[in-house]
Amino acid sequence: MQHPHLLITSAGRRAKLVEYFVKEFKTGRVSTADCSPLASALYMTEDHYIVPKIDEVDYIDHLLKLCQEAGVTAILTLIDPELSLLARSAERFQAVGVTVVVSPYAACQLCFDKYTMYEYCLRQGIAHARTYPSMESFQEAFSIGEVSLPVFVKPRSGSASTEVRQVETFEEVEQLFAKNRDLIVQELLVGQELGVDAYVDLISGKVTSIFIKEKLTMRAGETDKSRSVVREDVFELIEHVLEESGLTGPLDFDLFDVAGTLYLSEINPRFGGGYPHAYECGVNFPAQLYRNLMQQVNVPQIGQYMSDVYMLKHDTVTLVSAAELQQIKR
Amino acid sequence: MQHPHLLITSAGRRAKLVEYFVKEFKTGRVSTADCSPLASALYMTEDHYIVPKIDEVDYIDHLLKLCQEAGVTAILTLIDPELSLLARSAERFQAVGVTVVVSPYAACQLCFDKYTMYEYCLRQGIAHARTYPSMESFQEAFSIGEVSLPVFVKPRSGSASTEVRQVETFEEVEQLFAKNRDLIVQELLVGQELGVDAYVDLISGKVTSIFIKEKLTMRAGETDKSRSVVREDVFELIEHVLEESGLTGPLDFDLFDVAGTLYLSEINPRFGGGYPHAYECGVNFPAQLYRNLMQQVNVPQIGQYMSDVYMLKHDTVTLVSAAELQQIKR
Repeated sequence: MQHPHLLITSAGRRAKLVEYFVKEFKTGRVSTADCSPLASALYMTEDHYIVPKIDEVDYIDHLLKLCQEAGVTAILTLIDPELSLLARSAERFQAVGVTVVVSPYAACQLCFDKYTMYEYCLRQGIAHARTYPSMESFQEAFSIGEVSLPVFVKPRSGSASTEVRQVETFEEVEQLFAKNRDLIVQELLVGQELGVDAYVDLISGKVTSIFIKEKLTMRAGETDKSRSVVREDVFELIEHVLEESGLTGPLDFDLFDVAGTLYLSEINPRFGGGYPHAYECGVNFPAQLYRNLMQQVNVPQIGQYMSDVYMLKHDTVTLVSAAELQQIKR
Repeated sequence: MQHPHLLITSAGRRAKLVEYFVKEFKTGRVSTADCSPLASALYMTEDHYIVPKIDEVDYIDHLLKLCQEAGVTAILTLIDPELSLLARSAERFQAVGVTVVVSPYAACQLCFDKYTMYEYCLRQGIAHARTYPSMESFQEAFSIGEVSLPVFVKPRSGSASTEVRQVETFEEVEQLFAKNRDLIVQELLVGQELGVDAYVDLISGKVTSIFIKEKLTMRAGETDKSRSVVREDVFELIEHVLEESGLTGPLDFDLFDVAGTLYLSEINPRFGGGYPHAYECGVNFPAQLYRNLMQQVNVPQIGQYMSDVYMLKHDTVTLVSAAELQQIKR
């Protein structure tokens, strides 16, 4: 069996995660790619590549060529907008011997369309904040007292939490819809926010790891401090959510615990920004991915980690000279 | 000469800076304090202390007692709101043999009152964005075309960049003043933002180091990526700004280069969030502070660093168990 050579694309600022991969792929190889030479994660791997922006027409062609030239055998992206793109091109990569580590296209779309996700939860009997896909449906629910202000107004698709806003008045909801019809209105949940990292084995399709953390503080849209917890009810919910979803590989969930009832808030079908907490507590997704790429099945080990451990994020720095920047392969 | 024992207070998330201190104080000692046991920087030093919040009445008494019990010989804070507090209490610390590494109270106040700083710049002939301390003064300047929209509206004092907003209409400026009179209106400068780290020797009072970086991207209010530059015009400006200021120790400046003209934007009389760039390029403030605390004068070495080196910040993590948290000295 050939040792895997993983290319991590849109590596960005996620240097710590790339370091974990380098450590776990000792007998394999890890390379990185990004459109900017100022992406710190590039410098965690010996081989790193500057590639076009993901919205450029030749992006996939460029990646395919790069994979062939560099002997890449698997590809993984760290950002949402690239997931569907790679999922749609999975066959082209497969044809040149490259495994795309991504959920199927339909499963990615389920995660990115907030109203489709709500309907999925209704069907599966999973608690979810009430969600309205239009001004009319919100107005009707509001008039019969099914939902009350304040509410969240968010773009129906898209992952930018910067565009999510809490709205206090009915008039403001109307104004937002007047400017942009592609919004949803969501009931405001008040409770403890939980972040969950899960891994679904690429070969068996079974959930092999679930790690739960209470989110304590956020910074720049990411979990900055969190606390690990072990909860059977969360394990059960995640397994139930995943049953019919088709999702696979590394996944990130946001939940709310509202007085003991668990609400699913969203699923990101990729490594979450808070994953280092799971890794440091012994929940090792890079090692599981390595085994999958070696055609080995992982044994489920749900809940095997330390509870009540706090993760504190802080900054470190990488220095790069202008001369080094100019030498990067393009 | 006794080796110094430095206590870094309000250490917060600045783990990297604390690590530099630990390295440079090898023959001395560094301890840390914060009001929260979830401050990551605490865990970079062997001895760390949970202290009251800085606005609690017994904060200074608590610190004085801690310094005496732990044999602390010098104290340094990393956050703005604590600077004036320590400056005002410097004599009480001195009386028990503790050097407070802070600029004099009047110099701290000069930095925190944005209108006083503007008047200081006018007197010293230093370019600065036009600044108006009231609705009336802004209205007058606006009516004669001295300033045009958009403008910045900021609290007159305080360091929270979150409260700074760009305002597009005259009416909105009026509305903001109607809610809060303690604001200033500032001309909008469009140019390259520069961050400068400077060290003024505690004994000689001379500027010994000046490090300049172009700010490339910001994240959570801090410089995330920057590029080192060497510019004589900036060195001259900083030396001129400091002449009459009374400022001492580690300092952080924000400047704007507007088509070649340098404008002073603000001074933070403490370590800046982007200081790791300077340190990694060889501009070593912790070592200079160590020598000062050993009663040695530093020799000026202005401009002795590599130009065109990029700093990229990224995250790392520290894990702490609940059991460890409970053991911290209070």
